[in-house]
Amino acid sequence: MKLWSGRFSANTNELLDEFNASIEFDKNLWREDILGSKEHAKMLHAIGILSKNDLDSIQKGLDSIYKEIENGEFKGFVTQNEDIHMAIESSLSERIGEAGKRLHTARSRNDQVALDFTLYCRNQNLILQGLLKELMTTLLNIAEQHTATLMPGMTHLQHAQPISFGYHLVAWCAGFKRDIIRLQNSYDLSSECPLGSAALAGTPYNNERENLARELGFKCASLNAMDSVGSRDFALDLLYNIAMVMLHISRVAEELIIWSSAEFNFVTFSDTFSTGSSIMPQKKNPDVAELLRGKSGRTFGNLMALLTTMKALPYAYNKDMQEDKEGVFDSINTSFISLKILNASLKELKINTQNMLKMCQKGHLVATDLADFLVTEVGIPFRVAHHIVGSCVAFAESRGVDLSVIDISVLLPFLRKEIVESRALDSKDSKFSATLQNLDSNVVSKDSKKTNLDSILDSKTLKKVLDLNESMKRRTSKGGTAPKETKQQIKTLQKWLKQL
Amino acid sequence: MKLWSGRFSANTNELLDEFNASIEFDKNLWREDILGSKEHAKMLHAIGILSKNDLDSIQKGLDSIYKEIENGEFKGFVTQNEDIHMAIESSLSERIGEAGKRLHTARSRNDQVALDFTLYCRNQNLILQGLLKELMTTLLNIAEQHTATLMPGMTHLQHAQPISFGYHLVAWCAGFKRDIIRLQNSYDLSSECPLGSAALAGTPYNNERENLARELGFKCASLNAMDSVGSRDFALDLLYNIAMVMLHISRVAEELIIWSSAEFNFVTFSDTFSTGSSIMPQKKNPDVAELLRGKSGRTFGNLMALLTTMKALPYAYNKDMQEDKEGVFDSINTSFISLKILNASLKELKINTQNMLKMCQKGHLVATDLADFLVTEVGIPFRVAHHIVGSCVAFAESRGVDLSVIDISVLLPFLRKEIVESRALDSKDSKFSATLQNLDSNVVSKDSKKTNLDSILDSKTLKKVLDLNESMKRRTSKGGTAPKETKQQIKTLQKWLKQL
Amino acid sequence: MKLWSGRFSANTNELLDEFNASIEFDKNLWREDILGSKEHAKMLHAIGILSKNDLDSIQKGLDSIYKEIENGEFKGFVTQNEDIHMAIESSLSERIGEAGKRLHTARSRNDQVALDFTLYCRNQNLILQGLLKELMTTLLNIAEQHTATLMPGMTHLQHAQPISFGYHLVAWCAGFKRDIIRLQNSYDLSSECPLGSAALAGTPYNNERENLARELGFKCASLNAMDSVGSRDFALDLLYNIAMVMLHISRVAEELIIWSSAEFNFVTFSDTFSTGSSIMPQKKNPDVAELLRGKSGRTFGNLMALLTTMKALPYAYNKDMQEDKEGVFDSINTSFISLKILNASLKELKINTQNMLKMCQKGHLVATDLADFLVTEVGIPFRVAHHIVGSCVAFAESRGVDLSVIDISVLLPFLRKEIVESRALDSKDSKFSATLQNLDSNVVSKDSKKTNLDSILDSKTLKKVLDLNESMKRRTSKGGTAPKETKQQIKTLQKWLKQL
Amino acid sequence: MKLWSGRFSANTNELLDEFNASIEFDKNLWREDILGSKEHAKMLHAIGILSKNDLDSIQKGLDSIYKEIENGEFKGFVTQNEDIHMAIESSLSERIGEAGKRLHTARSRNDQVALDFTLYCRNQNLILQGLLKELMTTLLNIAEQHTATLMPGMTHLQHAQPISFGYHLVAWCAGFKRDIIRLQNSYDLSSECPLGSAALAGTPYNNERENLARELGFKCASLNAMDSVGSRDFALDLLYNIAMVMLHISRVAEELIIWSSAEFNFVTFSDTFSTGSSIMPQKKNPDVAELLRGKSGRTFGNLMALLTTMKALPYAYNKDMQEDKEGVFDSINTSFISLKILNASLKELKINTQNMLKMCQKGHLVATDLADFLVTEVGIPFRVAHHIVGSCVAFAESRGVDLSVIDISVLLPFLRKEIVESRALDSKDSKFSATLQNLDSNVVSKDSKKTNLDSILDSKTLKKVLDLNESMKRRTSKGGTAPKETKQQIKTLQKWLKQL
Repeated sequence: MKLWSGRFSANTNELLDEFNASIEFDKNLWREDILGSKEHAKMLHAIGILSKNDLDSIQKGLDSIYKEIENGEFKGFVTQNEDIHMAIESSLSERIGEAGKRLHTARSRNDQVALDFTLYCRNQNLILQGLLKELMTTLLNIAEQHTATLMPGMTHLQHAQPISFGYHLVAWCAGFKRDIIRLQNSYDLSSECPLGSAALAGTPYNNERENLARELGFKCASLNAMDSVGSRDFALDLLYNIAMVMLHISRVAEELIIWSSAEFNFVTFSDTFSTGSSIMPQKKNPDVAELLRGKSGRTFGNLMALLTTMKALPYAYNKDMQEDKEGVFDSINTSFISLKILNASLKELKINTQNMLKMCQKGHLVATDLADFLVTEVGIPFRVAHHIVGSCVAFAESRGVDLSVIDISVLLPFLRKEIVESRALDSKDSKFSATLQNLDSNVVSKDSKKTNLDSILDSKTLKKVLDLNESMKRRTSKGGTAPKETKQQIKTLQKWLKQL
Repeated sequence: MKLWSGRFSANTNELLDEFNASIEFDKNLWREDILGSKEHAKMLHAIGILSKNDLDSIQKGLDSIYKEIENGEFKGFVTQNEDIHMAIESSLSERIGEAGKRLHTARSRNDQVALDFTLYCRNQNLILQGLLKELMTTLLNIAEQHTATLMPGMTHLQHAQPISFGYHLVAWCAGFKRDIIRLQNSYDLSSECPLGSAALAGTPYNNERENLARELGFKCASLNAMDSVGSRDFALDLLYNIAMVMLHISRVAEELIIWSSAEFNFVTFSDTFSTGSSIMPQKKNPDVAELLRGKSGRTFGNLMALLTTMKALPYAYNKDMQEDKEGVFDSINTSFISLKILNASLKELKINTQNMLKMCQKGHLVATDLADFLVTEVGIPFRVAHHIVGSCVAFAESRGVDLSVIDISVLLPFLRKEIVESRALDSKDSKFSATLQNLDSNVVSKDSKKTNLDSILDSKTLKKVLDLNESMKRRTSKGGTAPKETKQQIKTLQKWLKQL
Repeated sequence: MKLWSGRFSANTNELLDEFNASIEFDKNLWREDILGSKEHAKMLHAIGILSKNDLDSIQKGLDSIYKEIENGEFKGFVTQNEDIHMAIESSLSERIGEAGKRLHTARSRNDQVALDFTLYCRNQNLILQGLLKELMTTLLNIAEQHTATLMPGMTHLQHAQPISFGYHLVAWCAGFKRDIIRLQNSYDLSSECPLGSAALAGTPYNNERENLARELGFKCASLNAMDSVGSRDFALDLLYNIAMVMLHISRVAEELIIWSSAEFNFVTFSDTFSTGSSIMPQKKNPDVAELLRGKSGRTFGNLMALLTTMKALPYAYNKDMQEDKEGVFDSINTSFISLKILNASLKELKINTQNMLKMCQKGHLVATDLADFLVTEVGIPFRVAHHIVGSCVAFAESRGVDLSVIDISVLLPFLRKEIVESRALDSKDSKFSATLQNLDSNVVSKDSKKTNLDSILDSKTLKKVLDLNESMKRRTSKGGTAPKETKQQIKTLQKWLKQL
Repeated sequence: MKLWSGRFSANTNELLDEFNASIEFDKNLWREDILGSKEHAKMLHAIGILSKNDLDSIQKGLDSIYKEIENGEFKGFVTQNEDIHMAIESSLSERIGEAGKRLHTARSRNDQVALDFTLYCRNQNLILQGLLKELMTTLLNIAEQHTATLMPGMTHLQHAQPISFGYHLVAWCAGFKRDIIRLQNSYDLSSECPLGSAALAGTPYNNERENLARELGFKCASLNAMDSVGSRDFALDLLYNIAMVMLHISRVAEELIIWSSAEFNFVTFSDTFSTGSSIMPQKKNPDVAELLRGKSGRTFGNLMALLTTMKALPYAYNKDMQEDKEGVFDSINTSFISLKILNASLKELKINTQNMLKMCQKGHLVATDLADFLVTEVGIPFRVAHHIVGSCVAFAESRGVDLSVIDISVLLPFLRKEIVESRALDSKDSKFSATLQNLDSNVVSKDSKKTNLDSILDSKTLKKVLDLNESMKRRTSKGGTAPKETKQQIKTLQKWLKQL
């Protein structure tokens, strides 16, 4: 017989019991449920509803249930108990009699489940922050060792500019840092305790909610009971936060997968984090990274599922809201294992620095450096410089050679010619024409002194401009890839992690 | 030691085993996996890879595994076995030795999992069709009893026109019929057998795939091995089909919830399909309908999850695709239990016909009838008639009475006046002005004979026009709510169900 | 000819221009783009790249473009200009010649678009907060007038406990308050300025990014250039925030729609915010509320779209990210107009307090009060009290009358009998048995003094227990519906709004 | 003044007009709306509602509106006209007076919009099928030229087995074929004409719906009016179909992007379908492919948006459903331009066959061939053979050489040793031990005759086994990559396309 069955003339249909029961999954909340009941009992005693004896019985009873569940001996996880709340309350009343039946005074399952689930989400939120912190620590450790390791920086998966491998890892960390802050914000936004809201309208008891809230680790009691039992914002926030974590992980994973291909060969997963094929004896697959990439899907789906479920629900509690938990549990589990395995596998990842370096000589990674040089040293407007270098690239391509290794003595005359001819592009632009009018011999340098072009643009200078290492070192602006600046970024993040 | 570990120098990390293993959920596919292996073995024998003895050992071995799993005695569902395929193959080799190790010839896990999962989806698809058929049967049975039961038909949740309750149920059925057809289409679209595709490129064996396909219930072998192992269209189709089923159910559920409110009180769930409150002793909640409404969310989420996971995967198999199953299992289970409980609870639903009838007298449900009458019998253009009746509604509202029960002797003079004055609306419209020029005494009737307006628009006629039952009976157009037409719709659907 | 076409040997295909161009929608960012360029130019001057003359030309040129766009006279919004950045830069160079070509020094479209879009999102975020504040102000104004207006409080859309209409509106506000905080958090999380990140690796210029950041209203320059150009977290955060706003609105809208039905008739939209039917002259539809409910869909879709697009992108900029804007624009527009119209229509909403009051007499709203009374005054454990009241509800139902209006002289003997018999439920529970042993004459009251049951449970007391107004007033716990407490909630929120 | 405003006492608020109006986007349906009205008018004439003169006026009036819209001269696309239906009906009445006001007899906007939008979706569905057909034709043309072009076939983005480039393209086609079938199924499922359903309950007119349906290109009239006006299944089906098309395209795009990287360099986009960088002069980016990949997001989002909007709507029309169109228009436009540009850019794609061939020598693509050889020629169980080859791979790896180019004289002795030692793996397996007992000299060959191992496993044979081209040619099973079989697949698809 159900605890709520007073007004009912017939037992519930078995199919209903199966459909309706949430005990199968909400048993996850047992710790929070028992904690909440213990604090609730203390409050009931404080306001005179429970005698000291009753309170003691309840605390002991709940403690014994706690131990049984912890040891896997609890018998109450059965469909007829509907949910974790009824399972524990029933068991308690069996153990201690009447006192157990007094426990549900001044509360409802509506605020009870809101409490349990909020507490649970807050606890998992903190664990998740810890795992992100560990991952960032690992990444920064690796990054520290690779602030001078050249690799081809890409946009559009096309070679763009030389960067360091360490710098790339810092970019990953920047996203994970935001993930932590987002979790902190969500934690704060769920700092109002719903317990004592009862069904939807509060209670006639002086139930000392502020005190109760603090005992349970909240900042304060919630403002409005109807909102407290009718909202699942805290669960949606967590689902979104996790979706973002997994989105970031999916991008990291995509890179690891591509870098593991035979064509890239930038990194190699250790055998301990690789798997084989049932048919192809040679295969060594980056399954870890693929699953990490694919698991973003389920976390997006869980978010979408709860958004849909909550859409257009009338206020206060509706049974639809029971659908809130499985997705959250799944997203939490997914993010936990994902962060752990990403962390562990990164620690054993082999970085193939020679292959990275070799690939830097493809794709004219230093083209922007040449354009910047023309701007700063020759005084050419960037747009014109961009065009001139574009021609140099075409020139190098036609010879099948990369700008970073081209024969300077071949490039230099071509470059000079292009500079001179570029005047044509701007015939109507008097100032620029003036600047370049004697360009074959003279040009306005950066410091506004007239200088001989040959002296600005000599072989040695050009060679340095086109040097891959020099290019990386050159990008010293805040946020840039220069080793010094990258080290600074690493330090900043390490310091931030420490104060967490 | 993993079956594929020949080239590996180290064992896999435990975390990887946990992360990577799918046996926890893909054990659901055990029936399909064993069936597929049995047919595969027959083929291998037919092409000379397996001796008759080996074939016999394999069939017996697989049969014994089948029985063990069925009886819950199988010991192979452990993480180290990775997945259902390895679990069964390992167990088989343990039982029968070398012959077991020959079974995986000419196939890969890639085509094996594609086969198992396709077979599974096809089987569940058929069961789902059956459940939809049962639900439609129940709905049509109820509808048959209520083709003359008046209820307020609504749009925008506002009273619109009188309809029958039976007619409303037929509308629900129309959606479920499309759900069945959609499932049939998906079944047909997954009629190509992937087995024999091997890793991604086919095999060097003459593996008689067409024959194999037919033995496994498919129409033919798949066209291209890379597509066969790299696509999950069949799973996405099923997820979408189920999302649509649950979308339709969510709408039915919303109506049942609203109809169960104290304010509507159109239907009452039986006690056997209702639940109570832990705090409020009087509560009887439509939890079934609420969960049915809310569960649409998870099925939308499952669809979105797999779409996301499959997005932008390079062709052929990627480990991300292992994420395909849990969502499908969940959507299948959700739709099965949902259809069963909706069916069962509808059978016990109490229809409060008196309340429905009473509410028909609110919202001027017969207003359109009056406009149609003005069109067909008085010859007034519909737009003008609409405006005239709008005024009548305002007139009735101001007296706090509904058009369906208004005192005809009060309405009639007002209506006549409005008709006359409506000429003003169209002063520039010569033809209409002509028609109405002597309207206080004469009007052009439907049959173009000049008639006295009084004779067309007398009390008795107007009373009939404004009668709720007459209104419903009047809508005899195909698809309309007239009892005769509704019965025809029911028959059409019943006949369609029969031929399934 | 494209500005970047130096290395290209052929013009782009027309289809590509159409497909690739974003100017059609990213022209929305024109204010931010011009502002960003002006500040960038100042910085270039400060570090010696731009002369004072060039800087002046650029500022004037950009100002003239600003005015043209504002006046709808700008001619550069054409496909061949690709995007807003190229459109403005090209136009600038046309106007001022060479100086314009120097502007793009030390930046890339990658950081430029990140800057423009971040700035845009931050600006809209603030406007959105303002609109939420206005809506809350309206709601609290209405709530203040209805802290004593009884309405049936519901859970599961079933009558639960009496609440006030004002209290219900406060529940809505609690959600909108969280929406504002969520937006504040997102604003803070997007406080790092991306400008100066250039392509992905920073620049070789000493580009004073911290200063630049502050000039543009940011807290600081971003940490890592690759992250800055490769992330769209700020856009996703805003999309999620808006999805939550629209989720909350969808719930408000659902209630308004249901309350507007003929059956509920709790509220009436003004004619100015209602629409009619093309066919049914009597219809007055709550279109506003329906669209508000439905528009949640597009904002969920926009969130899902960008999550999907960003999933598994390799780091730094990819062209996929151009897909980030249209969904954000749509979600912003949707939330703006939705908040405005909800606010405006609520101001004209008619509250049908008499109908609300009348419906309070259905559904035994005071049942919990009776149970609480049995707990506090008679000393009965809540679970037992719940059961006793359940029987009273069944008793009242069988007589077709509500507990709030039942003849006390009929209920009282029944209730007493139930209390006595309830001992049977707990025969094994010695303490409770003791308490009730002489229950027909005596009972342990709350203050532990033995009291005659008759004196505790007399007609007058029971009548008050079952009084609807008393019930509402009784719920004085924090967050409860008692008028005094509701007023406190309103004040708290008003104070919070003031300090924003 | 609104056409439906008869009962209203106040004009609508301007904000409502803006919020409520759909004319901004539903004007897209003008062709369908006019066609529907013309056929509706014919029907009204046939059943005596419209005179011949009125019918003629209407047809002429509608034709003139059609021409005006086509020429961009129509003035009715303004907010106050609300939607395309009212815009055209108002304009018609202005033109032809009273007859125009008769047109809306026996229909409602509810069935009118269902008709227009269904017709629109059906028309676009056919165009989409055509574009898919064109894409498949292009792909098959390219595939025909590359049935012998070796490339590394991959799973997990790791080298797996040698395949041909043409074969890979056929895999793409297999998905697009299913897309066409899915569209055909959706077309068929939307073959019931909603016109004549009126508001929700049918009409009192004998409106010859079956005939009307056929005139408008449908198979029959819809079954139930409430379903017809209340369902948007046809729109959801199309959204899902397009999501699947874009999912497939996203996968193709991902491959093209990866293949375009400097590291892979398998394909090169033509300059006409590439774009450059604003800052990096050397860049040539595969923007087309990136946008194609990213645009899957918006189509998933559009599907999710409408699913959400339709979730839990009560039956018959609700205003929420006005949200159905923009997402559909967007998905249609997205898929059209995407298919066109993919088709066009593929025609100009350069296939770098030499790079593909070179990369085939990495990743031991022929490992499976060696295992299959051991099975078929030496009689070793596949699992054992897999292990032996795994060791060979490790052996080759340790020497830094690929199996396809390894020195046979070095591999052969190692392989023989491994075969002999493999007995140890199966010591308890008597049969296998027997087979291999004299393996250093003898072995049971495929044809069960005892043969000297040396003669089976000589250098020449092994060389052929490990030949890349031979490997590809060997996979002749149905669906396999052998050129002959690939050609057959191409022919099958071409034939299928022809009969469409």
